[in-house]
Amino acid sequence: DQAKQIFGVLPRIAENPQNPVTPEKVALGKSLYFERRLSKSSSISCSSCHDLGMAGADGLSTSLGYRWQLGPRNAPSVLNAALEFTQFWDGRAKDVEEQAKGPIVNPKEMAATKELVVQRLKSIPEYVDAFHKAFPGEKDPVSFDNTANAIAAFERTLLTPSRFDRFIAGNTAILTEEEKQGLNTFVSVGCTTCHNGVDVGGGSFQKFGAIHKVDWLKDLGRYEVTKNEADKYVFKVPSLRNVALTAPYFNDGSVWSLEEAVKTMAYAQLGRTLTDAEAKRIVAFLHTLSADPALVVPPPVLPPSSLSTPKPMP
Amino acid sequence: DQAKQIFGVLPRIAENPQNPVTPEKVALGKSLYFERRLSKSSSISCSSCHDLGMAGADGLSTSLGYRWQLGPRNAPSVLNAALEFTQFWDGRAKDVEEQAKGPIVNPKEMAATKELVVQRLKSIPEYVDAFHKAFPGEKDPVSFDNTANAIAAFERTLLTPSRFDRFIAGNTAILTEEEKQGLNTFVSVGCTTCHNGVDVGGGSFQKFGAIHKVDWLKDLGRYEVTKNEADKYVFKVPSLRNVALTAPYFNDGSVWSLEEAVKTMAYAQLGRTLTDAEAKRIVAFLHTLSADPALVVPPPVLPPSSLSTPKPMP
Ligand code: HEC
Ligand code: HEC
Ligand code: HEC
Ligand code: HEC
Ligand SMILES: [Ca+2]
Ligand SMILES: [Ca+2]
Ligand SMILES: [Ca+2]
Ligand SMILES: [Mg+2]
Repeated sequence: DQAKQIFGVLPRIAENPQNPVTPEKVALGKSLYFERRLSKSSSISCSSCHDLGMAGADGLSTSLGYRWQLGPRNAPSVLNAALEFTQFWDGRAKDVEEQAKGPIVNPKEMAATKELVVQRLKSIPEYVDAFHKAFPGEKDPVSFDNTANAIAAFERTLLTPSRFDRFIAGNTAILTEEEKQGLNTFVSVGCTTCHNGVDVGGGSFQKFGAIHKVDWLKDLGRYEVTKNEADKYVFKVPSLRNVALTAPYFNDGSVWSLEEAVKTMAYAQLGRTLTDAEAKRIVAFLHTLSADPALVVPPPVLPPSSLSTPKPMP
Repeated sequence: DQAKQIFGVLPRIAENPQNPVTPEKVALGKSLYFERRLSKSSSISCSSCHDLGMAGADGLSTSLGYRWQLGPRNAPSVLNAALEFTQFWDGRAKDVEEQAKGPIVNPKEMAATKELVVQRLKSIPEYVDAFHKAFPGEKDPVSFDNTANAIAAFERTLLTPSRFDRFIAGNTAILTEEEKQGLNTFVSVGCTTCHNGVDVGGGSFQKFGAIHKVDWLKDLGRYEVTKNEADKYVFKVPSLRNVALTAPYFNDGSVWSLEEAVKTMAYAQLGRTLTDAEAKRIVAFLHTLSADPALVVPPPVLPPSSLSTPKPMP
């Protein structure tokens, strides 16, 4: 009950009144999510860095983009991302609709242009048809904005119920004693001051190193967006859903051990040194946030290119 | 009936008595097929170059591997590949079991070593367990060879019935008049001297340029394997199943138009100049070889790395 108050109940989809989730939009968005032709080289899709078989992340410290460029930050999971109050580690996009435009045109990621994306999609009759169905009544629905809207609608369905949600729903026997103790420690130690709400995080910006400075940290975080001195080393509190499946940890993907990440948090954010037993209990609890393995999105069959489709540019 | 004689009946799976297809092996092989950690960088899997949503190919002229290296040849589809008499454009692997070992250790593709693969897999308890189930009775089942055997067993299930197979099975109404005329032209012009059997190809080596030299051709093909003068410019006759979905064409992926590929074939292989109408009819027939879109393999959920899993090396 206390847990229900702190965390709340996971919805079935994360609605956005500005971009209603419809089956047609989700079907299109799913195809586009797997669509390599949204990238300049025609070899990188959203799923390259957010593999749904890897809990929506890529298992790398930082991701590989166009021409094998290594980016500066760890790729967060797309699972449950739509629930968060802002997108990216530094909150520079307000929702998944705005977010999805970023990587497509980022020269280090998919490296396309809006024009190239629209040209590719308009050259493929199946896509033209699917955009008309997903955005009925629009005169020119095959647009860069609607590409992002469709992908975002798909992402709004990617919420992952876990054992913890069944616990919250009243099935208290579903957690082991150790897991329950871990939850208690997680709350009593103060983790929930930041990691709370339905996404167990994703609700506020906080300084990484609130109490003790994190010595290896280079990324200035939200400061890069606001240029406000107080925002140095401030990041979005990440969701801890699926955290046991999405190593490595932190904005630079520098820590591979979840136990070590938990101890780092306790020290840096709460000024507390956890015992091994406390850290292990918390880790046991964090495992209850892993998606039910039944979460398998049947993959799309993508339509072939036509002769007018702009060619891959590797 | 004549068609049934030339082409034969597609089996449900492509059996290999040396590597029996079992559900456990196929389940493991499917995971491994999508497993990026089989590559040095932990970012490239079989599915990177053989996307099942793109009819088992990648839509590039030649594929991108480790550190964005561009390979020399077009990636053929994995769909129905297990039916062919030999693997690769030059036939340098005898079956899909032998083939699967190639790309994993190829420094231009996945760039791993046998040792790295075994170390990664042994560090992940779910994989150790799955290998024991897939290869019961073996003392040390987590091996490089069994990795290839499991992937190959999965590939042996990737056969794609099409409208043409229902036609062969007696449902003659399923092809349009144009498609039937295309089939007739395909047979009468002589394409079936090479593209015959259940995979509509994949049964012999032939010189590309049998009648007229192909002026742009650089790749020496099977000669690279045998160093036999007569094997210069000799390639495996590719299967034409899913050909309408797997542009670009030829061993170097240099031709994007299927109609142009058909005309090139007629001239280079048969010394014949097709009319536009003949070429279009043949293309209409080739479309009947496209997999039923229902062919969607539910993707696997991959197990997380453990702390002893060798890290990605991008
Ligand atoms: C080349 C790798 C790469 C590609 C391709 C890529 N992403 Fe990302 N994604 C990242 C990285 C790295 C971040 C974190 C960047 C940051 O915060 O500055 C990220 C952040 C996100 C976030 C924010 C999640 C959160 O919790 O804040 C979402 C949502 C997302 N990506 C979805 C997508 C979608 C949709 C696409 C395709 C249109 C895509 N990504 C393509 C690497 C990639
Ligand atoms: C004062 C706010 C705050 C508190 C308290 C806090 N965290 Fe965090 N947590 C953050 C922020 C911000 C990050 C992101 C740090 C980064 O990588 O930039 C984070 C990251 C994490 C990560 C890594 C997530 C990932 O996917 O990379 C874990 C695990 C974590 N916290 C667990 C905990 C635990 C367990 C506690 C309690 C012991 C805790 N946190 C307390 C703010 C907080
Ligand atoms: C970096 C790109 C890349 C990766 C990764 C890759 N392949 Fe390939 N694949 C190719 C190319 C290119 C060829 C043709 C090479 C040749 O014939 O010389 C090929 C050929 C094949 C063939 C032969 C098909 C035929 O008709 O002859 C099969 C089967 C195959 N690959 C399966 C796999 C499997 C299984 C994996 C993973 C273990 C894999 N490939 C990884 C690019 C790749
Ligand atoms: C003498 C043997 C032979 C004959 C006859 C022949 N082909 Fe081919 N075909 C080949 C070979 C060998 C290749 C592979 C060429 C290469 O790319 O190296 C090929 C490739 C193709 C391709 C490209 C396949 C791909 O996936 O890249 C198509 C399409 C094709 N043939 C259609 C036809 C048609 C239509 C005819 C009749 C007009 C025909 N072929 C006659 C041997 C033949
Ligand atoms: Ca997130
Ligand atoms: Ca991570
Ligand atoms: Ca091809
Ligand atoms: Mg083939």
